[in-house]
Amino acid sequence: MTLAVRYTAARTLDTAPAEASSPGPGEVELAPAYVGICGTDLHIFHGDMDARVAAPAVLGHEMSGRVARVGPDVEGWQPGDAVTVMPLRWDGTCPACASGHRHVCQNLDFIGIDSPGAMQQRWTVPAAILVRLPGSLALDRAALVEPTAVAVHDVGRAEVREGERVVVVGGGPVGVLIALVARAAGAEVRVVELSTHRRLLAEELGLTAWDPAADDVPELVQRWTGGAGADVAFEVSGAAGGVGTAVEVLGVRGRLCLVAIHPRPREVNLHRFFWRELTLVGARLYDRSDFERAVRLVADGTIPAERLISKVVPLTEAPAAFEALEAGGDVMKILVDCGNDATGA
Amino acid sequence: MTLAVRYTAARTLDTAPAEASSPGPGEVELAPAYVGICGTDLHIFHGDMDARVAAPAVLGHEMSGRVARVGPDVEGWQPGDAVTVMPLRWDGTCPACASGHRHVCQNLDFIGIDSPGAMQQRWTVPAAILVRLPGSLALDRAALVEPTAVAVHDVGRAEVREGERVVVVGGGPVGVLIALVARAAGAEVRVVELSTHRRLLAEELGLTAWDPAADDVPELVQRWTGGAGADVAFEVSGAAGGVGTAVEVLGVRGRLCLVAIHPRPREVNLHRFFWRELTLVGARLYDRSDFERAVRLVADGTIPAERLISKVVPLTEAPAAFEALEAGGDVMKILVDCGNDATGA
Repeated sequence: MTLAVRYTAARTLDTAPAEASSPGPGEVELAPAYVGICGTDLHIFHGDMDARVAAPAVLGHEMSGRVARVGPDVEGWQPGDAVTVMPLRWDGTCPACASGHRHVCQNLDFIGIDSPGAMQQRWTVPAAILVRLPGSLALDRAALVEPTAVAVHDVGRAEVREGERVVVVGGGPVGVLIALVARAAGAEVRVVELSTHRRLLAEELGLTAWDPAADDVPELVQRWTGGAGADVAFEVSGAAGGVGTAVEVLGVRGRLCLVAIHPRPREVNLHRFFWRELTLVGARLYDRSDFERAVRLVADGTIPAERLISKVVPLTEAPAAFEALEAGGDVMKILVDCGNDATGA
Repeated sequence: MTLAVRYTAARTLDTAPAEASSPGPGEVELAPAYVGICGTDLHIFHGDMDARVAAPAVLGHEMSGRVARVGPDVEGWQPGDAVTVMPLRWDGTCPACASGHRHVCQNLDFIGIDSPGAMQQRWTVPAAILVRLPGSLALDRAALVEPTAVAVHDVGRAEVREGERVVVVGGGPVGVLIALVARAAGAEVRVVELSTHRRLLAEELGLTAWDPAADDVPELVQRWTGGAGADVAFEVSGAAGGVGTAVEVLGVRGRLCLVAIHPRPREVNLHRFFWRELTLVGARLYDRSDFERAVRLVADGTIPAERLISKVVPLTEAPAAFEALEAGGDVMKILVDCGNDATGA
């Protein structure tokens, strides 16, 4: 028997034995090594997504691991291959898929939310969602590929170009990854983040970070840009004030990329959008090219993934880690160690 | 002496004699023929823009007319030439100008708001803002060129392509012009408008118009687009409900072009922007290429300008026309006749 972390009810996780099933046609069984805890996992833990998540549910979609067993009709994969997954299944027929935007399929199955996730010792998935990892990439770092793919997608949606000035509002894991990807694209970047711990980490990564509680961020942007305003802002905070700041710092024809989830409507200064001819671009998830680029950025060290990992906890301590994350504190990314790092290696 | 319509205080216009001054170097004196009354003129009339408009102020920026006198150092213009003006003066040095977006210059002089406008019998302007009109184009119709240039700019900002499905929320003059320009670009268009009179006019122009008070607009869009949602929406209503409708009708990767002025922040469903990867694009004014295209569209009848002109009133009756417009009623565009249509013809 193998173990799985399960969401059973609001604020309740347990670890329970799970039955391994042989991979069917087109499927592979994976041995997850590390699984990152994502903000969405915390939303589920809070009970905010009970309408969508059928308990008991195995969470986890930021993973690395190895192929354990290969089902019939699967080509190109061998036991022991190091992989991550792009955790999306689309129907291929809805209007979004028909228009080429499968990652926002109107009937998307997000694996780890809508169907069982990776926080378990064996996990059977369609081979089609596997993404190969280079052998040189440590599996703990590789667990950061999925959020890096989010950042790659966001920077692409905002069309960040070399020399542009970019403000990232919200310096959690995704915000810092966006800042690093934008910097790799040649942009100058400022991060706006309330947490001292997170600002210090951003500074350690060579980013400049501002404290919106102490600094006059729009004024700092004015000085930084010689009165022109920023070219691009990313709203990654999820806060009402974050939206306001992101709109306010943009110069003429600036682009605001909306990354955070705002469950309720927000007041937006539409007059500023009119007056400065601003653009707001929503960004969600990623496609395969984003994922493959993310693998390269993590593997070549452009993303110093090890610096973003605050803590690695064993599977049995995942419930406690969720509770600690909910309480806040000085953390970036927490990984769950499924105890398989040596499997097949 | 010649007459001018002047804004003197909130809800107060008068007509007063104006002194003609000889055009200086680089200037021309125009004989305005027709001047349209714009929504912005009504805002000024309401007293909403007193912080910006120094009374007494001559209003009017949607004009047609002829060159009356040509100042020194002006080349290419002769008395009698039929013209309209692009009523913008930029400083050429601010960050917006430096980045090539002069029409949203940070120190823009919008002529007719920030400096004296066209609602007078003689009007001296820089020759640089003149736009030539074809001799075949009647001057009353030519007064619609300026709002048509707004529509051309908006349709360009939204990047409307052939075969796309477009919803225009708000069927006043600018909304109908956007609908006509989008149709000329090959789009299928629906207009959403509360006023029965305006819906009927839109229908007479071959457009399909829906009543948001009676029709379930999102449901109609679903049926019209086979569940995909609209490709583009234009928010031209200025109403909170209009913003909501424009966001709701868009399909995956839909673009919302924000045309109307929303002086106060609006609640916006940002989650939908994230979920469907929507884009919001602010659009303001126009540049010279928009203006020149607008001249062609009005001249070749693509824009049936005569159908949008509800009424033509003499200069002395302009104050009463503003009062009637403020009271609402079944009108689209009202032109002020400056009594110069035969001048130089």
